[in-house]
Amino acid sequence: MTLYLQLASHYRQAIHKGVLPPGARMPSVRGLMGLHQVSMSTALQACRWLEAKGLLEARARAGYFVRADKTWALPPVSEPALVALHDEARYVGVHQKVSSVLARAQSRGVRVNLAGAQAAPELYPLERLRQSSQRVLRQRGDCLVTPPPPGGEPGLRSALARQALEQQIQLSPEEILITHGCTEALTLALRAVTQPGDVVAVESPTYYGLLQILESLSLRALEIPTSPHTGLSLPALQEAAVLTPGLKAVAVVPHLQNPLGAVMPDAAKQALLAWCEAQDLALIEDDSYSALFDGPAPLRAIKSFDRSGRVILCSSLHKTLAPGMRLGWLSGGRWQQRLEMLKYSQSRPNESLPQLAVADYFNAGHGSRHLRGMRARLVLQREHMAEALARHLPAESRLSVPNGGFNLWLELPEGLSSMALFGAALDEGIRLAPGAMFSNSMRFDRFLRIGCGHPFDEAVRAAVQTLGRLVQSCR
Amino acid sequence: MTLYLQLASHYRQAIHKGVLPPGARMPSVRGLMGLHQVSMSTALQACRWLEAKGLLEARARAGYFVRADKTWALPPVSEPALVALHDEARYVGVHQKVSSVLARAQSRGVRVNLAGAQAAPELYPLERLRQSSQRVLRQRGDCLVTPPPPGGEPGLRSALARQALEQQIQLSPEEILITHGCTEALTLALRAVTQPGDVVAVESPTYYGLLQILESLSLRALEIPTSPHTGLSLPALQEAAVLTPGLKAVAVVPHLQNPLGAVMPDAAKQALLAWCEAQDLALIEDDSYSALFDGPAPLRAIKSFDRSGRVILCSSLHKTLAPGMRLGWLSGGRWQQRLEMLKYSQSRPNESLPQLAVADYFNAGHGSRHLRGMRARLVLQREHMAEALARHLPAESRLSVPNGGFNLWLELPEGLSSMALFGAALDEGIRLAPGAMFSNSMRFDRFLRIGCGHPFDEAVRAAVQTLGRLVQSCR
Repeated sequence: MTLYLQLASHYRQAIHKGVLPPGARMPSVRGLMGLHQVSMSTALQACRWLEAKGLLEARARAGYFVRADKTWALPPVSEPALVALHDEARYVGVHQKVSSVLARAQSRGVRVNLAGAQAAPELYPLERLRQSSQRVLRQRGDCLVTPPPPGGEPGLRSALARQALEQQIQLSPEEILITHGCTEALTLALRAVTQPGDVVAVESPTYYGLLQILESLSLRALEIPTSPHTGLSLPALQEAAVLTPGLKAVAVVPHLQNPLGAVMPDAAKQALLAWCEAQDLALIEDDSYSALFDGPAPLRAIKSFDRSGRVILCSSLHKTLAPGMRLGWLSGGRWQQRLEMLKYSQSRPNESLPQLAVADYFNAGHGSRHLRGMRARLVLQREHMAEALARHLPAESRLSVPNGGFNLWLELPEGLSSMALFGAALDEGIRLAPGAMFSNSMRFDRFLRIGCGHPFDEAVRAAVQTLGRLVQSCR
Repeated sequence: MTLYLQLASHYRQAIHKGVLPPGARMPSVRGLMGLHQVSMSTALQACRWLEAKGLLEARARAGYFVRADKTWALPPVSEPALVALHDEARYVGVHQKVSSVLARAQSRGVRVNLAGAQAAPELYPLERLRQSSQRVLRQRGDCLVTPPPPGGEPGLRSALARQALEQQIQLSPEEILITHGCTEALTLALRAVTQPGDVVAVESPTYYGLLQILESLSLRALEIPTSPHTGLSLPALQEAAVLTPGLKAVAVVPHLQNPLGAVMPDAAKQALLAWCEAQDLALIEDDSYSALFDGPAPLRAIKSFDRSGRVILCSSLHKTLAPGMRLGWLSGGRWQQRLEMLKYSQSRPNESLPQLAVADYFNAGHGSRHLRGMRARLVLQREHMAEALARHLPAESRLSVPNGGFNLWLELPEGLSSMALFGAALDEGIRLAPGAMFSNSMRFDRFLRIGCGHPFDEAVRAAVQTLGRLVQSCR
């Protein structure tokens, strides 16, 4: 993405978030040059782009101002009551619901996918990954016919340990276990710390994949109210825990939670960890998304505060680097040995080729540039989508627009069902992710997770328009 | 392998097995030409090679005869009493034993590996696999950045379905689920048909990897006496089953069983299946090795007799084609849907690149030529190893030499411990697979599984000599 678009998208976001409210004065071209260390032509291009998008208007001799009539935005999703839900911990029964949604979507011709929690292929560095893979095949092709090393390829484990340092996590390469995606990491983590029938506290709403794992392991889920901004409610968890025998672990996505996009403040992470420590619970942290956060500094994983090996950190590269390579990893603290045993007995070490290729890619220093570009494109895609939703959906709708990642979380007006809407949209060739998938209850049937991974083109815009029409007709 | 060596190895095996006993007359050169459709020079070369190896002697005007004094061979391993062991079904506790063996072997400089249950890298078609991988990267490189299709790549599933036809198994590509090696296939199969605490009947001895899976899933193993020739004893299983509540499944390797190398006769497979049907048990069939069988026709999988979907067939390509690509698959009969759910929730679909590469390899028609060559080399390696063991081990030793695969099963003289021998051999840079790993008991501590996957070179010969010395000194 060119520099002027990055700059424009920065201000576009500021306008949509109300940091620059309608009527506010945009920094001058000279001001932009100083603030962002860009050339005059870049600053001018950015302002003209924002003007062309209808967000700014030029006033003669006075500069650019935010237009009042064009800042399309829905109000934010309401905060849940952050007390326990008074649901009992329940065996999970989402598989039927989730797999019927997945199967229906797969069996139909989908023109526009608004459901995906990953980016379009063109946002990933295909050429460099292909080059790295080819180099590995040339130089170390014998990895195809020799058994892979236990635990993972040393080169990849070292690269991941170096990256973890940026989140202030101190890990030796040997403390990193390569897995088949984050899904296998989570499965192993849960197998390591629970027995069938045990209870695991999860965010509500939470990723349906986690619920499916709980279901397949005969575990019970305790759903904890979760803020779209600050994540899991510790008071609600504490209240629920008192009433719940058999609680063994808490599983959270502290950064850009799926589906909410919430980011836990550092103090909340530390408080959660301290409480898990006091209650002798395992804390399973899924950190797959934090590299997509648009903040000035990297987010600190809960694992970075962990002094006693209580956190099992699970992460992956299939959201941020290569959806087709299925590389995940975990670091299991006090359970590391048990996790290694479970990984070995469940699927043996991962094959070497993708590990060596990604290590080659990281060692060539491509990682952070790719992430910067991807984040910049995602900002834009989220903004476009948020604006389109505001244009086409009823004004009573509400929307969470997170500071990173792929997803928006849309609250539909009273009386609507996301499951009904899912079917109607599929008839129009549009795939949705109904909120009902993200809970063991039907609590979120009035919500949709909206994927923004695809460039916002005419087909996506038309799909949002169709969605608006369907919502109106379903009321 | 050249034609004359194939012919020679065929007769070498016949001599070692006693089909051509000492003193017997070798077919004439003209006879060989007619029998095997080879040229006179090939037939002559084969006879001279056998003569040079000391197996034949030429008698003037009379032709070649088997020498009496040079047919080095140990007697076969004794058949177990094929009645129940009167062990109870027990929770498995092999992990400590197995992982300490694996860890000790990995931490030491091993010069010669006599433990492996796979072939040396040079027995696999590296160049063709590399070419196929490179072609896929060129033509379908976007598989690196797009999520892989559920269930596996259609091209690979079709190729595997066609191969299954050779074993008289009728499967549609959709009935084949691609997994991370046979290990994940077995894990999923056991998860699909059992709950923790249930009992699974296994061969005794059996592959330690299966025991580790049982242990990690909190299942109990019921070990059933197993013949080195004809495999699992159905009468013993029937007797044990009467005394064992909670039996849910039988897990067998009917072809070239690991570690014994046994091959179940078709009638025994059918009888086992019928009994599982009558008892309402799942039958889990691990068929990873059958492509390495040296018979005139492919072996028939138990699955080929299955009319009611009772057999979960698990297999893999990492023994026969590509140890580094970790491709396995299963076909789950009546449990297919549950297996698909478990696979999806445990690790999501396998990455595409290795699947597409192997499909490309198969579609180019390389599969069967590679297997013919590999089998011919393994015959020779097993024969060499069997002869060397006979030369260097005490005469009271016994040896199973199967008709295919990587392994010999060696019974040491009374009083010896394979675990003790393992440590002593490791001190000499030689890795062994102690028999004690292959059971939840110490029943097989007097046995070794001897890997013949490596070309029989001077280092291997010297290692066998050292082994002989260690056995003598440990008595």
